[in-house]
Amino acid sequence: MEYLPSDHIRFSESRTTVVFLNQAALPNHVEWKQTADRQEMYDAIKKLEVRGAPAIGIFAAYCLAVLAKNYPISDIVGFGQRFHEDAQFLVSSRPTAVNLSWATGRMENVFLNTASLGLDRVKAALDEEALRIHEEDIGMCSRIAENGLSLLRAGDGILTHCNAGPLATSRYGTALGPILLGQERGYNFHVYADETRPLLQGARLTAFELSNAGVDTTLICDNMAGLAMRQGKIQAVLVGCDRVARNGDMANKIGTSQVAVLAAFYQIPFYVCCPASTFDGNIATGNDIIIEERDPEEIRSLYYKEPMAPMGVKCFNPAFDVTDHRLVSAYITDRGVIRPPFNENLASTFT
Amino acid sequence: MEYLPSDHIRFSESRTTVVFLNQAALPNHVEWKQTADRQEMYDAIKKLEVRGAPAIGIFAAYCLAVLAKNYPISDIVGFGQRFHEDAQFLVSSRPTAVNLSWATGRMENVFLNTASLGLDRVKAALDEEALRIHEEDIGMCSRIAENGLSLLRAGDGILTHCNAGPLATSRYGTALGPILLGQERGYNFHVYADETRPLLQGARLTAFELSNAGVDTTLICDNMAGLAMRQGKIQAVLVGCDRVARNGDMANKIGTSQVAVLAAFYQIPFYVCCPASTFDGNIATGNDIIIEERDPEEIRSLYYKEPMAPMGVKCFNPAFDVTDHRLVSAYITDRGVIRPPFNENLASTFT
Repeated sequence: MEYLPSDHIRFSESRTTVVFLNQAALPNHVEWKQTADRQEMYDAIKKLEVRGAPAIGIFAAYCLAVLAKNYPISDIVGFGQRFHEDAQFLVSSRPTAVNLSWATGRMENVFLNTASLGLDRVKAALDEEALRIHEEDIGMCSRIAENGLSLLRAGDGILTHCNAGPLATSRYGTALGPILLGQERGYNFHVYADETRPLLQGARLTAFELSNAGVDTTLICDNMAGLAMRQGKIQAVLVGCDRVARNGDMANKIGTSQVAVLAAFYQIPFYVCCPASTFDGNIATGNDIIIEERDPEEIRSLYYKEPMAPMGVKCFNPAFDVTDHRLVSAYITDRGVIRPPFNENLASTFT
Repeated sequence: MEYLPSDHIRFSESRTTVVFLNQAALPNHVEWKQTADRQEMYDAIKKLEVRGAPAIGIFAAYCLAVLAKNYPISDIVGFGQRFHEDAQFLVSSRPTAVNLSWATGRMENVFLNTASLGLDRVKAALDEEALRIHEEDIGMCSRIAENGLSLLRAGDGILTHCNAGPLATSRYGTALGPILLGQERGYNFHVYADETRPLLQGARLTAFELSNAGVDTTLICDNMAGLAMRQGKIQAVLVGCDRVARNGDMANKIGTSQVAVLAAFYQIPFYVCCPASTFDGNIATGNDIIIEERDPEEIRSLYYKEPMAPMGVKCFNPAFDVTDHRLVSAYITDRGVIRPPFNENLASTFT
């Protein structure tokens, strides 16, 4: 397959378009897209062709660099206005994605800092900033991968939930980072991937990424993780996370907290992989994290030929859940491995 | 909807055909079938149009009574041979279903016991035996329902997994029995039904049966049960079971053991509903129960428009799991509620 996890978002060789892997077509079709069009860029984010918070940020940075190159504008004020409009437009494609506005903010700062040097220098600096955002993410993921690998042994069985791989980030990913780095170094891990209902990110993306990288991968339904643990197949759990509270509670894809309870019951270490930026010092505990509820049709009929449940039946469809800090063995971050007590050790590492 | 849970298998009014609800078409189509044909009866079991161990036994008994009525045979020896052939043929549709051979064995005994009285008396006795098998199952389920209801409070939130309702048995079912009986008596339960991947019996059957009976029912993915418990939505768990070992370990649909671990963690009672016949005194512990593994395609693509996982990816697809006896709060049976220590209390109740 013509897919390398490290470069699923990039400039074309001439740097006049953005090339990206259409994740909405996976795993059945490996489709590369290429665009210099603002509306197509917006749609790519909106339709989840590019998804995963860090990946969206990287993509938006490349997009702004490409768009700026093609403005038919020679005055710096007009250029700046147009650039700001495009940045706002891209942010509006997924307004709650923090990395999106963070990345476009960095690009706007570059414009402001170089505007006095002329348009050619501005455009070159925007290119460099997009590449830098991408490289920084690779560096962050690499450090998480190294730190995580230090906790694992060759031949381990590893359970993961949802998708926190290169497709969601850049090279290595977060939760899949230690696995992919271990694969390069001959660790021969045996990975069990939860399919992750309702949207099946584990089946569609994690199983795709890991198989593609040559990792021994076994797909299971979410309700099979406990049996796999009971049978001794699992030596460690690795998951990503969306947000960590001051006391170490954390929010991640629905189902994560169950996996944590099972791991505690079967005395298997439960590791959470995430960059430092995931810690939210404004939130005291997981009880302060609001759980988004999504469309019931995701449970009732999405991906099915016809509805698989009675048409009118109520569904409870939370997108995330909160895992109690007492169930987390350690946070694996780009700044090192953080162990309990989290209320002390998170603060001392990140403040 | 034209469905009553108590009569999804029955004689036609003239007792010359068997009428049954085609469960393979649920929940999208409520299709009643009617047959006096041996091959159609065989196919109905084979294709899971009738499923659930007790339901299959009841169905086979009605089938044999109907078939016997139509034999163009007047000598008792020829009749007996044909009857035995038909019984064997029906058993071969699902050879591992214990209730199937148990029910056909009872019907054969009736033939042997009445053969000397003439064919008319034999045929009448077969009718009566089929009705008796059905009524006995209703009685057993009713006692389970009564015993289970005694442990619940009005307004409770109840989690269930897979399908152990009237469709799998007769009136009330096992795990759904206390819920349906409570519904008749105004208990206003709030039921959360795990969809139960990979074959979605919870979504297709449990949600259908409960909604149909007017129970407040919410369908969830299997990975949402933990969050529902954490949020205080669940006051009790009710599940069925396939087999209970002497020490109280039990086997049931894949995912059951996880629910038990979660219930223990969140301090919610975990009740197992089953008739006395489910106890297997020949098995010391759950470790002696062999876990059937099924076709990986059930995970990779069944019910989907196209494969939702990479074509070649390995799958682990156990059909059942084993729940440790320490996680079971009580067995709710037709002979009463049995509490720990199970190694003593199961034996004293059932031997």
